[in-house]
Amino acid sequence: MTDRVYNFSAGPAVLPLPVLEKAQSELTCLPGAGASVLEISHRSKTYIEISEQAEATVKALLGAGDDYRVLFLQGGARLQFGMIPLNFLVGAAAPADYIVTGSWGKKAVEEARLVGDVRVAWDGKADNYDRAPKASTLGLNDEAPYVYITSNETIEGVQFPADPNTGAAPLVCDASSDIFCRPTPIEKYGLLFACAQKNAGPAGVTIVVIRKELIEKSNEKIPSYLQYKPHADNDSMYNTPPCFGVYMVGLVAKWLCDDIGGLAEMEKINRRKSQMLYDVIDAHDDFYKGHALPSCRSLMNVTFRLPSEELEAKFLAEAKTRKLTELKGHRSVGGMRASIYNAMPEAGVKTLAEFMKDFASKNG
Amino acid sequence: MTDRVYNFSAGPAVLPLPVLEKAQSELTCLPGAGASVLEISHRSKTYIEISEQAEATVKALLGAGDDYRVLFLQGGARLQFGMIPLNFLVGAAAPADYIVTGSWGKKAVEEARLVGDVRVAWDGKADNYDRAPKASTLGLNDEAPYVYITSNETIEGVQFPADPNTGAAPLVCDASSDIFCRPTPIEKYGLLFACAQKNAGPAGVTIVVIRKELIEKSNEKIPSYLQYKPHADNDSMYNTPPCFGVYMVGLVAKWLCDDIGGLAEMEKINRRKSQMLYDVIDAHDDFYKGHALPSCRSLMNVTFRLPSEELEAKFLAEAKTRKLTELKGHRSVGGMRASIYNAMPEAGVKTLAEFMKDFASKNG
Repeated sequence: MTDRVYNFSAGPAVLPLPVLEKAQSELTCLPGAGASVLEISHRSKTYIEISEQAEATVKALLGAGDDYRVLFLQGGARLQFGMIPLNFLVGAAAPADYIVTGSWGKKAVEEARLVGDVRVAWDGKADNYDRAPKASTLGLNDEAPYVYITSNETIEGVQFPADPNTGAAPLVCDASSDIFCRPTPIEKYGLLFACAQKNAGPAGVTIVVIRKELIEKSNEKIPSYLQYKPHADNDSMYNTPPCFGVYMVGLVAKWLCDDIGGLAEMEKINRRKSQMLYDVIDAHDDFYKGHALPSCRSLMNVTFRLPSEELEAKFLAEAKTRKLTELKGHRSVGGMRASIYNAMPEAGVKTLAEFMKDFASKNG
Repeated sequence: MTDRVYNFSAGPAVLPLPVLEKAQSELTCLPGAGASVLEISHRSKTYIEISEQAEATVKALLGAGDDYRVLFLQGGARLQFGMIPLNFLVGAAAPADYIVTGSWGKKAVEEARLVGDVRVAWDGKADNYDRAPKASTLGLNDEAPYVYITSNETIEGVQFPADPNTGAAPLVCDASSDIFCRPTPIEKYGLLFACAQKNAGPAGVTIVVIRKELIEKSNEKIPSYLQYKPHADNDSMYNTPPCFGVYMVGLVAKWLCDDIGGLAEMEKINRRKSQMLYDVIDAHDDFYKGHALPSCRSLMNVTFRLPSEELEAKFLAEAKTRKLTELKGHRSVGGMRASIYNAMPEAGVKTLAEFMKDFASKNG
């Protein structure tokens, strides 16, 4: 345990240590089940309880009422990029509206175009994806089958400062890297999805929060795994679910409720953590250059550059000696990215902030 | 550990205890990685090694050469039911030939029919799915884009006694419940897939062994997750893979190589194990009635009925007191199903065989 580092990976990413320890303690035998959670039938009473509890806890965290279902699927955000248009764009009378605030939004557009007609209603490309749009600048089509956003662009570190108001069309949101980071007014969303491996669990399970009326619009002419309705009708056990992933999401959600005290408390912690880093960047703005506009800075992914690539390489190497790892930014943006998801301890962020100050003083 | 039962679940199913113990020992911190395998980036050197090693070990077990790739995907067999026709049936000049030996083959046909034209070349329905066809009875179309079989029907307990000869069209095989149970002449197959949760790992990862020339025939007009080529081109890291599942498949494959001694040894053990149960059934054929014809009995799923549903309920209840669990058959066949995958210890099968003898003596 003592050789654990502070892991700033953008995903898969750090998980809460109490969750890992709990999973470890029962990995060979789940209490009362006589077998590992990796071995029990998804039709068993034990697993059904795990799945129901995970759904209930996620719904409680998001304040989702009876008009929503939470599904646990496979295939990651990437499969959602295809499933969403396959279900809701095929046969629609108008194109879907996509708002592109970074790399993942761009990929979602490319995938939707394989399926149907897409309108890019807003694109941050001209500003190198450093901001989210203001609602007043969006001329959205209320007749669109849906409006699509990426609430937090992991690569650029750009986050919608608040959940946007987008009009009459159902709002679809890729919340892969910021689900659970703050309270979510879920009633704004028709469908909100997140691959788990950033802020909610391990890779291999995707959380889909979907309004029941959208479920009923599932396209029945595509292979059944790709339809939302069979998954909803079968409580995410239409086919064998990624049981261990669902179990872990349940543990993480319970940790958020019980140990953290809910998403409002989590937001306070996340604001403290991200502010620590943004304060260092702003105090050394002749050395560190943040990527996102201050109004759209992510609570989850802090992206910044140093004065030269040589200094960036030196920064990474020295960070590693302090057990601060995975700080290298995505090649498309360059520089550094500190992913400080819910499970990253404040002590880790503090250690990084201190290191950043030191490094700027010594090399600035 | 002492409260572990003998778990005869059809899937998710028993895993090798040494594999579980290894995973448990490093669940909070993978040696040298500073983090759990649940937390490390799929772009990290550590994970890339895990994935490459898993692919190499699976290829070694199956004797697959350079003309094959092993992919680790998500979505289970159910998503393969759709991906296969989406990639290889759309736009084909002839229908695909499906051989239906049980419930999973039937479902595969239903899914393929959502996508294109299917011919059921053989169907065991008239005999209540108690057998596999003889090659001589199959009038297969060499022009078909592929021929589809289910090597082992989990629900009925019917297995092809040997890998069939099916002519010129690429052979596609759902080996979800019998991959790794015996040596596989992989060169017979164009594509062989298996969800891991029966004989190869936990739920949430699907092994796809695919001939390179088929990869090149991927349909580029469907969402990219559904195409085989991007997964192959990116070594199963096109999108974030189910890292923990791949790690577990790697450990199971290594256990098969190192602890068991390979698939020929595994087959010997599986023959001993299944024979123990079939011998009891045959010795008490006035009490137990096997479902499958003796020539097509599965090495993995032993299905049988008792004289009455009352006796079946009593059997299940008494079995449970001996820590023999999950023996209830699928509702479509009724009776009992003992799933005795590779990881089921011989001691577990022996305990069940003894119990079956006792039960027949006392109640026959």
